[in-house]
Amino acid sequence: MSSSDIFIGETIGTAILILLGGGVCAALTLKASKARNAGWLAITFGWGFAVLTAVYISAPLSGAHLNPAVTLGIAIKDGEWADVGTYWAGQLLGAMIGAALVWAAYAGQFTAHLTDREIVGGPGAQATKTKAVEAQEKGAGPVLGIFSTGPEIRNAVQNLATEIIGTVVLVLAVLTQGLNDSGKGLGTLGALVTALVVVSIGLSLGGPTGYAINPARDLGPRIVHALLPLPNKGGSDWGYAWIPVVGPLAGGAIAAGIYNLAFA
Amino acid sequence: MSSSDIFIGETIGTAILILLGGGVCAALTLKASKARNAGWLAITFGWGFAVLTAVYISAPLSGAHLNPAVTLGIAIKDGEWADVGTYWAGQLLGAMIGAALVWAAYAGQFTAHLTDREIVGGPGAQATKTKAVEAQEKGAGPVLGIFSTGPEIRNAVQNLATEIIGTVVLVLAVLTQGLNDSGKGLGTLGALVTALVVVSIGLSLGGPTGYAINPARDLGPRIVHALLPLPNKGGSDWGYAWIPVVGPLAGGAIAAGIYNLAFA
Amino acid sequence: MSSSDIFIGETIGTAILILLGGGVCAALTLKASKARNAGWLAITFGWGFAVLTAVYISAPLSGAHLNPAVTLGIAIKDGEWADVGTYWAGQLLGAMIGAALVWAAYAGQFTAHLTDREIVGGPGAQATKTKAVEAQEKGAGPVLGIFSTGPEIRNAVQNLATEIIGTVVLVLAVLTQGLNDSGKGLGTLGALVTALVVVSIGLSLGGPTGYAINPARDLGPRIVHALLPLPNKGGSDWGYAWIPVVGPLAGGAIAAGIYNLAFA
Amino acid sequence: MSSSDIFIGETIGTAILILLGGGVCAALTLKASKARNAGWLAITFGWGFAVLTAVYISAPLSGAHLNPAVTLGIAIKDGEWADVGTYWAGQLLGAMIGAALVWAAYAGQFTAHLTDREIVGGPGAQATKTKAVEAQEKGAGPVLGIFSTGPEIRNAVQNLATEIIGTVVLVLAVLTQGLNDSGKGLGTLGALVTALVVVSIGLSLGGPTGYAINPARDLGPRIVHALLPLPNKGGSDWGYAWIPVVGPLAGGAIAAGIYNLAFA
Repeated sequence: MSSSDIFIGETIGTAILILLGGGVCAALTLKASKARNAGWLAITFGWGFAVLTAVYISAPLSGAHLNPAVTLGIAIKDGEWADVGTYWAGQLLGAMIGAALVWAAYAGQFTAHLTDREIVGGPGAQATKTKAVEAQEKGAGPVLGIFSTGPEIRNAVQNLATEIIGTVVLVLAVLTQGLNDSGKGLGTLGALVTALVVVSIGLSLGGPTGYAINPARDLGPRIVHALLPLPNKGGSDWGYAWIPVVGPLAGGAIAAGIYNLAFA
Repeated sequence: MSSSDIFIGETIGTAILILLGGGVCAALTLKASKARNAGWLAITFGWGFAVLTAVYISAPLSGAHLNPAVTLGIAIKDGEWADVGTYWAGQLLGAMIGAALVWAAYAGQFTAHLTDREIVGGPGAQATKTKAVEAQEKGAGPVLGIFSTGPEIRNAVQNLATEIIGTVVLVLAVLTQGLNDSGKGLGTLGALVTALVVVSIGLSLGGPTGYAINPARDLGPRIVHALLPLPNKGGSDWGYAWIPVVGPLAGGAIAAGIYNLAFA
Repeated sequence: MSSSDIFIGETIGTAILILLGGGVCAALTLKASKARNAGWLAITFGWGFAVLTAVYISAPLSGAHLNPAVTLGIAIKDGEWADVGTYWAGQLLGAMIGAALVWAAYAGQFTAHLTDREIVGGPGAQATKTKAVEAQEKGAGPVLGIFSTGPEIRNAVQNLATEIIGTVVLVLAVLTQGLNDSGKGLGTLGALVTALVVVSIGLSLGGPTGYAINPARDLGPRIVHALLPLPNKGGSDWGYAWIPVVGPLAGGAIAAGIYNLAFA
Repeated sequence: MSSSDIFIGETIGTAILILLGGGVCAALTLKASKARNAGWLAITFGWGFAVLTAVYISAPLSGAHLNPAVTLGIAIKDGEWADVGTYWAGQLLGAMIGAALVWAAYAGQFTAHLTDREIVGGPGAQATKTKAVEAQEKGAGPVLGIFSTGPEIRNAVQNLATEIIGTVVLVLAVLTQGLNDSGKGLGTLGALVTALVVVSIGLSLGGPTGYAINPARDLGPRIVHALLPLPNKGGSDWGYAWIPVVGPLAGGAIAAGIYNLAFA
């Protein structure tokens, strides 16, 4: 694959990933959305099928990493580092474009939500109170959850551990894919399984931190949240921003280590 | 494929698509339905598996476009326009037949619902109040949501943008399909992925307008709503009808442009 | 396939289908079940994955019809009637065994449910009141919905129409399967698609009558309901029993006619 | 496969299975989790996709049994017993590691949940009262349901019957897999179908006992529950512990018998 195909594929793919992933958070959070309060299962299927759609579209161009932790894991496994920077750049740019597209698709809903007097919480109706209190204490804005992740209980060691564990599962599934599909690389069925693995991680390990498991997925939209001129948007919670970057990268590296020890 | 196979395949396929897609809206909206208020996730899986069933049945005859925006995107990509009219005619006729079949399957429920004194809303229990107020202001009838889409916040630019974005994702996934499945055309696995892409668009981008992303899906049933002699059915909201036609067609054309620039 | 393989395969397969399909109705209906009131989406996925499991297990023996309407449609399409009786006999016997196994798996729950003073309804929490009133008027017992289907609005023409429409969709998908999978017969992917078609029919067309779409699925368990010595079980609603037999058989025949006209 | 590949594969695979399966129970049960009270459908998809992820990752190493009852069924079918002990040892060790990882990912949530004055119940919000009363009577702790299964109605014969029936369905699906996939062994599609069979068993047969259907899945985490120094964790309900071991093993043996009689 050429560098330009990698960059374009990762940019388009990650933009679609964040458009659809951030979109399902917007759909369930914002006022005047038909999907409001549709529940955690909808969030997890929404993110999972976002992965499916994004991988399916971008795989022919770039192999569809769409996640710096996946790129890191593959680089460690293969010992090839030449394209890592190109992948990461496309992923971060794509994530920012995707977050802006969420705003474009839900602009009216954002305005209605942020200018209403109703007390608003983050995504995940079940935890509204916990999150709202948390948000006020920490300065996280009422729609930040549409862009980036945040913990229910703020504890750096614990939050890092959860993100690392989730990412190890994801990257291990990606790395063993070649073993399952007879070395054919990422096919349609592999994209589907990867998507359902992401649903699984969301259902099972998403409770404490919202499962970033992808540095670009969290950092790109957080930058866009900081830049967008939304009324009453509140803070971007930069104090937490390093955890969904460092945790997933560590998880990707650990997964590659497990792969090289047990599967190679 | 012969013109008659195309026409028959698209008619049968789009009829099944709308029977099942409109059906899930009827199932969740109408009184005396076992599925009433089953939630937004049921709506999105219902439409997604409607696509799967319809594509699976009609693909051997016509390739299963079932959507004028898909037909447009493929025509632009391939530069072949000869069959576009045949596809579009079958799609519109099929959509009308499908909407009539929804009425046939739920006739008793329609009557019970429309003659009851209970205050009724559109599909999507979460937004009932918003929608009911909206409906009264605009003259959209209480069961129009079973036939056609409508916005939560009425704003032509915003609503067009949302429909365009959703359709770009759909048509881009359809156009890249040949790249994923080794040029074998639309196989069973491709039908499944396309269905889950539609679930994804519904979960993530359906909140503002109800994701028509298909001119025939919206226009055909709206015509049937206008024609059916339902009691107290209210208006067919013709003022909005152009948006789910123009938006998806624009989205299909933009997707073809992106494809030709980045993937061809 | 030998007659004994057909009979054994259909018996085992239909027993598993009804064990799992009736099981999800028991799980959501009965007191002291962890799944109580899990909602209509759980019912439809439960029946769909019941089809997947049953087809997957029995397909190597009998081709996994598991439904007299499917057997009828295939017989009309192929013009071969020799095995129809064997298929039907295995299907009815299997359905009765499956219904008895539901009772075996949920015996304690049946007793707790039927001897409790709480007012009980059928499956589908959303329609409890409608159904309970209906049940008392017609003599349908409080757990009959775990065994057999029943209409929300009792009207023979309407109920037949709904069952016919649902079965046409199912059997058409089964008949076109050979066209999709290169004539390989029912493979694993075909089983999965058929299962999701059943989920689709449940979500979209199950609201009025509970989608029997299979004579054996309804008649076999109704016989078992009549025979089982459950306390306070109420009537078996034999007045309705012909509709989920005649409707699906008519649907299967119509689907074969559509197939022979448009797809053959 | 070498003994060390079997042991390592089963250990890694079962650890991932229990991490994700126990994880979804933690996510829905514990305070300060975004997924709290997401419902039974989320539990069943969570466990099913846990199977998918674990099988997909470990299949290249060990064939991914991940369940002593599956290993037993395959041993009876093939008449080969040499590796059974290695499989079982890896499965039990992996299950214990997985349960410990659930605690690591949700440590803050466990502490918050167990030290809160709120009256807590087990997983499955629908049955909270039944379960809480049951738990107090029997000494099962408030978070034991995150580790191991427990019955809604305590009756050894009934509970054994339910576990046996569920496991027969699972192991029969695993044993017939070779017949479906042209003897290719467990491929990606087979892993997906097996996962959905587990969803099916959960939806349809999980109501009475919580569907252990796997001795390692229940015993390993129960040991970890007994060992972990959690505050106010209550008892580990050892009186019930033999049922989810004996029932699934009996089910696996019966499934192998059915296979040898009807399918071989």
